[in-house]
Amino acid sequence: MALNLDAVGKTLGPALCEYNEDDVILYALGVGAQPGELDFLYEKNLKVLPTFAVVAAKSRDLDSGKLLNLDYTKVLHGENRIEIYQPLSPRAKISATVTVKAIYDKGKGAVVVSEIEARDESGDLVFKNIPTTFIRGEGGFGGDRGPTGAKNVPPDRAPDKVVSMKTQDNQAQIYRLSGDKNPLHVDPEFAKRSGFDRPILHGLCTYGHCGRAVLQAYCDNDPGRLKAFEVRFSGVVYPGETITTEMWKVDEKTIVFQAKTSESSVVISNAVAELA
Amino acid sequence: MALNLDAVGKTLGPALCEYNEDDVILYALGVGAQPGELDFLYEKNLKVLPTFAVVAAKSRDLDSGKLLNLDYTKVLHGENRIEIYQPLSPRAKISATVTVKAIYDKGKGAVVVSEIEARDESGDLVFKNIPTTFIRGEGGFGGDRGPTGAKNVPPDRAPDKVVSMKTQDNQAQIYRLSGDKNPLHVDPEFAKRSGFDRPILHGLCTYGHCGRAVLQAYCDNDPGRLKAFEVRFSGVVYPGETITTEMWKVDEKTIVFQAKTSESSVVISNAVAELA
Repeated sequence: MALNLDAVGKTLGPALCEYNEDDVILYALGVGAQPGELDFLYEKNLKVLPTFAVVAAKSRDLDSGKLLNLDYTKVLHGENRIEIYQPLSPRAKISATVTVKAIYDKGKGAVVVSEIEARDESGDLVFKNIPTTFIRGEGGFGGDRGPTGAKNVPPDRAPDKVVSMKTQDNQAQIYRLSGDKNPLHVDPEFAKRSGFDRPILHGLCTYGHCGRAVLQAYCDNDPGRLKAFEVRFSGVVYPGETITTEMWKVDEKTIVFQAKTSESSVVISNAVAELA
Repeated sequence: MALNLDAVGKTLGPALCEYNEDDVILYALGVGAQPGELDFLYEKNLKVLPTFAVVAAKSRDLDSGKLLNLDYTKVLHGENRIEIYQPLSPRAKISATVTVKAIYDKGKGAVVVSEIEARDESGDLVFKNIPTTFIRGEGGFGGDRGPTGAKNVPPDRAPDKVVSMKTQDNQAQIYRLSGDKNPLHVDPEFAKRSGFDRPILHGLCTYGHCGRAVLQAYCDNDPGRLKAFEVRFSGVVYPGETITTEMWKVDEKTIVFQAKTSESSVVISNAVAELA
């Protein structure tokens, strides 16, 4: 089964996606929110974590894998960027499309960049979600290698701020109720067959933890202050481990960061938060 | 507003209630289930915690408060019993009724016993849920005092088995997504006005923890072996505290138990699990 290279530039949707306060709170719990972050957990004055954008536009009609003729067993989530154009509402109907933006040839595999665009009922842009996936074994088709080199590299000094968050042992079980039911994150036998000692945390669950860390450290927990958030997934987090987010304020509007666990090396790298 | 004493014997419903695997898993997480109890957290071979019966029959059409002319600010959950006639399915449409079984006159207040009956699509009884509530200030109407005296008292010996479970700091936030949105369990200001230092755990969340403890200790985590489960709510649990369930096997089919926190005295008392 070969990747359909003609998918570049093609769009699926728009599809109508709905979510409500319970979905927003469940997501916040899925990325470890604690009672001290009450505004993200209580329907009275509820705020939406910006990283909710990665699960807000769910629809079977937005499966870009159909365009790409994708074999999901070969897919690794490589990077993820979100851009927030207006703070997300706690209850909304959004209209979303997905477009295949690029397919790069990395030799051993292909890299696919997709872009989900979500608009409110007035047609105004709410957010973009831009996942980059690595497709094992699908390279070598003579295509463009795409952007290379390191980006968002931390300065050569100690981090300006550090936030540590212990994940719960059942963190992946909570997170997956927001939609990503990949058995790798819950099924011990499946995880072993995939080469892991036990089920691993969703990369996007770690992503949400880092988002909370940046919001706490630089945004006074005000979602309106986070405009974009981008990471590379570089390592594995096991549920129960502590995610430590190290942050560097490189200019007024730019926080470069990375995340580590004490058990592993860097798990999130080449990462940036862009502030208002 | 006086309690409507004529409500006794009256029934609301049947109302159709639906739930699915995600609801079952969310409830299990709400009562603290951990990855080691995978069968309660994974849709593959999913089992349903018997205590899910307390949230499975949710419908606005089953509000017995309407029959009783109830002022909910006066209501305390006193006791709760469930009876399981067949193991609950992970996805079901059930038809439920609620009947006011008795109103007792305790002087300072009234005690109301209700009974929710749930049947499957064939009309077969699945479970009964029997909450007993204390209504402050509604006694003194010259009625029957009802049953008195201690029941399900532990024998005068050390417990036969003990299971301790640490609750998560955000346990109440998870549990309330199963339906009980009382702000007492999430809103610090509301909790203070109600006389508590901070939000308290739902009594029925503690109930679910005790249910897991009995299932682990005496049922090999097989829900089919638990036929009835009854407790009295005797004290307050704060999220983050450890619930220790002490159990005594008083005969082949009867486990008397109580639960404590290290911070408090007994929080669940006069409790029994009836086994198959």
